Amino acid sequence: MQRVSSSLAPEFSLSRIAFGLWRLTDWGYSPAERVSLFERMLDLGVTTFDLADIYGDYRCEQFFGEALRLKPQLRERIELVSKCSIRLAGEASGARINHYDTGAAHVRMAVETSLRDMGVEQMDLLLLHRPDPLMDADALAKVLETLVQEGKVKQLGVSNFLPHQFDLLQSRLSSPLVANQIEASLLHSVAMFDGQLDHCQQHRVIPMAWSPFAGGRLFSGTDEDAVRVQQELKHLSAARGLNAEDGPMQLALAWLLKHPSNMIPVLGSGNPQRLEAALSALELELDREEWFELLRAGRGRDVD
Amino acid sequence: MQRVSSSLAPEFSLSRIAFGLWRLTDWGYSPAERVSLFERMLDLGVTTFDLADIYGDYRCEQFFGEALRLKPQLRERIELVSKCSIRLAGEASGARINHYDTGAAHVRMAVETSLRDMGVEQMDLLLLHRPDPLMDADALAKVLETLVQEGKVKQLGVSNFLPHQFDLLQSRLSSPLVANQIEASLLHSVAMFDGQLDHCQQHRVIPMAWSPFAGGRLFSGTDEDAVRVQQELKHLSAARGLNAEDGPMQLALAWLLKHPSNMIPVLGSGNPQRLEAALSALELELDREEWFELLRAGRGRDVD
Amino acid sequence: MQRVSSSLAPEFSLSRIAFGLWRLTDWGYSPAERVSLFERMLDLGVTTFDLADIYGDYRCEQFFGEALRLKPQLRERIELVSKCSIRLAGEASGARINHYDTGAAHVRMAVETSLRDMGVEQMDLLLLHRPDPLMDADALAKVLETLVQEGKVKQLGVSNFLPHQFDLLQSRLSSPLVANQIEASLLHSVAMFDGQLDHCQQHRVIPMAWSPFAGGRLFSGTDEDAVRVQQELKHLSAARGLNAEDGPMQLALAWLLKHPSNMIPVLGSGNPQRLEAALSALELELDREEWFELLRAGRGRDVD
Repeated sequence: MQRVSSSLAPEFSLSRIAFGLWRLTDWGYSPAERVSLFERMLDLGVTTFDLADIYGDYRCEQFFGEALRLKPQLRERIELVSKCSIRLAGEASGARINHYDTGAAHVRMAVETSLRDMGVEQMDLLLLHRPDPLMDADALAKVLETLVQEGKVKQLGVSNFLPHQFDLLQSRLSSPLVANQIEASLLHSVAMFDGQLDHCQQHRVIPMAWSPFAGGRLFSGTDEDAVRVQQELKHLSAARGLNAEDGPMQLALAWLLKHPSNMIPVLGSGNPQRLEAALSALELELDREEWFELLRAGRGRDVD
Repeated sequence: MQRVSSSLAPEFSLSRIAFGLWRLTDWGYSPAERVSLFERMLDLGVTTFDLADIYGDYRCEQFFGEALRLKPQLRERIELVSKCSIRLAGEASGARINHYDTGAAHVRMAVETSLRDMGVEQMDLLLLHRPDPLMDADALAKVLETLVQEGKVKQLGVSNFLPHQFDLLQSRLSSPLVANQIEASLLHSVAMFDGQLDHCQQHRVIPMAWSPFAGGRLFSGTDEDAVRVQQELKHLSAARGLNAEDGPMQLALAWLLKHPSNMIPVLGSGNPQRLEAALSALELELDREEWFELLRAGRGRDVD
Repeated sequence: MQRVSSSLAPEFSLSRIAFGLWRLTDWGYSPAERVSLFERMLDLGVTTFDLADIYGDYRCEQFFGEALRLKPQLRERIELVSKCSIRLAGEASGARINHYDTGAAHVRMAVETSLRDMGVEQMDLLLLHRPDPLMDADALAKVLETLVQEGKVKQLGVSNFLPHQFDLLQSRLSSPLVANQIEASLLHSVAMFDGQLDHCQQHRVIPMAWSPFAGGRLFSGTDEDAVRVQQELKHLSAARGLNAEDGPMQLALAWLLKHPSNMIPVLGSGNPQRLEAALSALELELDREEWFELLRAGRGRDVD
C-alpha cells in the first residue's frame, strides 16, 4: 500500500488508509480474534491504527493492549495514533461535564494512562483531540515536547483544529505538528473550502479524515442530501462496472483520496471483508468530471 | 488616466479602470467596429482589457483576435488579462458538468488556446479563474512558472480566491501573484470586511472588481436593497449636481475607487458613450460621509 | 493587584482589571467626587483607566480632565487608555452620519483634542476604536508613529479588530500593537473560538474585554440565554458559599480571567462598593469543570 509522509518529518509515514478502532469494544471479538484482525490489516498494508483515550468509554485502548500482549511482535509493524484532551462526564473520568483539558497535568496523565492501557512504551503520533478554549499554548507546548523527549510520543499532531488554533500551538513548538485529523466526507466537504485542508496542504501537514462515510449516512441515510449522494454513487458504480455492494463505498473513498492534500481516511469497520473491499479504492482513479459530479451530489449544487 | 501598479512587480501597471469584454460576442459589432471601440478605449487611457477563455461560450477571445488581426499595432497598447481553469459543460469543452481544472495539462492547453484565439504571443496577466478544491499547488505553480519562463504569460494572478487559497498557491511560487479579481460593488461589499481586500492591501496585490454595478441591479434592480441604493445614488447625484443619467453610475464607481486597496473596476459595457461617461468617476472625490451613506444604503444598516 | 504586560513592550503594563469611564458623565459626580473615586480605584490597584473620545457624546474626557486638574499628581499613577476613529453623527462632531475615520488628519486632530480635554501631555495607550473599511494602512501607520515620536502616545493598539485587520495595520508599523479591546463575556464568547483571542495569545497582544457583563444582561437580562447563565451563576455562587449579591458578578469575571490570553476586563461601574466587590474575582480560581459549566450555560450547548 502507498504510504504518506511529510517533509516536516521525512522519516515518519502513515499508511494511505488508517484503521479506526473507536468501536473496538463493540465488535465482540476475543483478544485472539482481535490479533487476527490486526494481522489481516497489517498484511494488507493498513499499518496506521487510530485510537483515543476516550474511545469505548475509555476502554478501547485496553482492548487493544489486551490483544497486543498476546502477540507483542505486532507492535513494531503498527503506527499507533492516539488522542487526549477530551474528558467525558461519567464514572471513568470522574468528571461532571464533558469538557476539554489541555493542561499539562492532564495531558501527561492521559498519555501515560494510554501507554499503560495499550501496553506500549511509545505512541507514534499523539493528537490533541479538540481545540480547547482554555489552551495555554506555552504550557501545552512544554509538556508535549517533554513527552517527545522522554520517548513517550514520537510525533505530535492535532485533531479538529482550525488553522488559527493550529498556528497558535505550532508557534510555541519547536517540533512540527505533522497531522490534523478532521471530519471529511462527501456529506461534509466544508474543510475543502474553508481553509482547513488548504492550511494542511500549504504547511505539509498530513490530514486524516474521520467519518469518511459520514457515520453511515453515505450508504443508509434517508435525508435528502444522503439520498442524492447514494444515487450518484450507485450511478457511478454501475457506470464503472463496480460490484453493487462495494462500489459506492470504494467511490466515496476514492473521492477523498483524490484530494491533493493526501488525506488519510480512517476506516472504522470491524468487518475484515468490508475493509479489504474498501482498499480497492486505492486503484480507482476518478476523473475530474466524476469528482465534481460527486461534489455536486454532496453539496446539492453546482460549482459557481 | 491614472495607472495602478504594485511593488510586487514595479514595472507592471494596469489602467485605473479596466475594460471587460465578457459580452463582446453579444454586442453585434463587426471586426472593424470592434477595432474602433478598442481604439476609443485606448485613447481614453483604458488600456487593460479583461477576458477569459470561457467568455461568450469560449468565443470572446476569438472575437477579440479577429479584430486585433485587422490592426495588430493595438497589441502593444493593451494589457491583456485572461483567465483559465473553469470548464463549462457543453460542446465547446466536451465536459459533462461545469467544473474547475487547475491541473497542469489543462492550464497549459487553455493558455495556449487563448493565445492562439487572440492571435497574440503573450498575455500580460493570467488569472486562475476560480479556486479549485482539487488544486495541487506544487503542480500548478510549476506549470505557471514554466508558462512565464516560456514568455506566454507575463504576470500571474488569481480571481475569486480567498486569502487562504491565495496564500497556498503563493507559497509554492517564486513569482508573485500580482492581482486578485473579486466581486465588489455597493450591493456586494463583503470583501471590504471579511479580509479579502485587507489581504490585497497587506500584500500589495492589485484587486480588480468584477460586477461593479452588481450586474445592473445597482440601476435597475427591484429588490429592497437595490432600491435603497438607487435612491441614495440619485439623492447624492442631485446633491452633487451631476447629470441624472450618468451621475449614479459615476458615484457607484467613485465609491469603489475610494477604497484604499486601489481596486480596478472592470467595466463591461459595449456602449462607448456610457464608458466615457463612467470615466468621469475618476474626478469625483467622495468624502467619508458620502462614502458611508452609500455603504449604509448598500448594507441596509449603519456601522456599529 | 496583578499586572499584565507583554513581551512586545516589556516595560509597559496594565492592571489586571481596568476601570471603564464610558459612563462618567452619567454618574452625577462633582469633580471632587470623581477625584475620590479615582483615588479609591488607584488604591485598589486598578490603575488602567479606559476612555474614548466619543464617550458621553464627546464629554467623558472633559469630565476626566476636570477632575484631574484638581489633583494632577494622580496622572502618574494612571495608565490612560483612549480611542479614536469613530465619528458620531451630531452637533459635537458636525457629522451627518455615524462613520469611521482613520485618516491621518482626523486621527491627529482626535488625539490632540483628547489630550487637551483630559489635560495631559500623553496617553499611555491609543486604540483605533473600530476597523475602518477605508483604512489606508500606510498613511495610518505613519501618523500613528509620528504621534508616538512626538510623545503624545506611548503605546499603540486597536479595538474590535479582527485578526486580518490587525495584521494589515501591524504590517506597516515598526511599533507593536500591544492591545486589542474586544467584546467578551459569558453571553458573548465567540472571540474564544473564531480566532480573535487565539491571535492575541499567539502574538502576545493584550486583550481587553469590553462589556464583560454583556451590558447588564448577565444579571438582569430576561432572554433565554441570560436566564440560563443567571441560574448557573447563582448555583455556582451558592455552591462556592459566595455572597448572593456579589458572587455571580465575581464568577462572571473569574470566568474571563481564567482565559489563558490574560484578558483584562473593563469594569464600567461608578459604584465603588461594587467595584471593590468585583475585585475579589481575582482570588476566585475556577476549576475546568466549573468553567465549562458556565460556558455551556452561556452557549446553551455542550462542547462537541
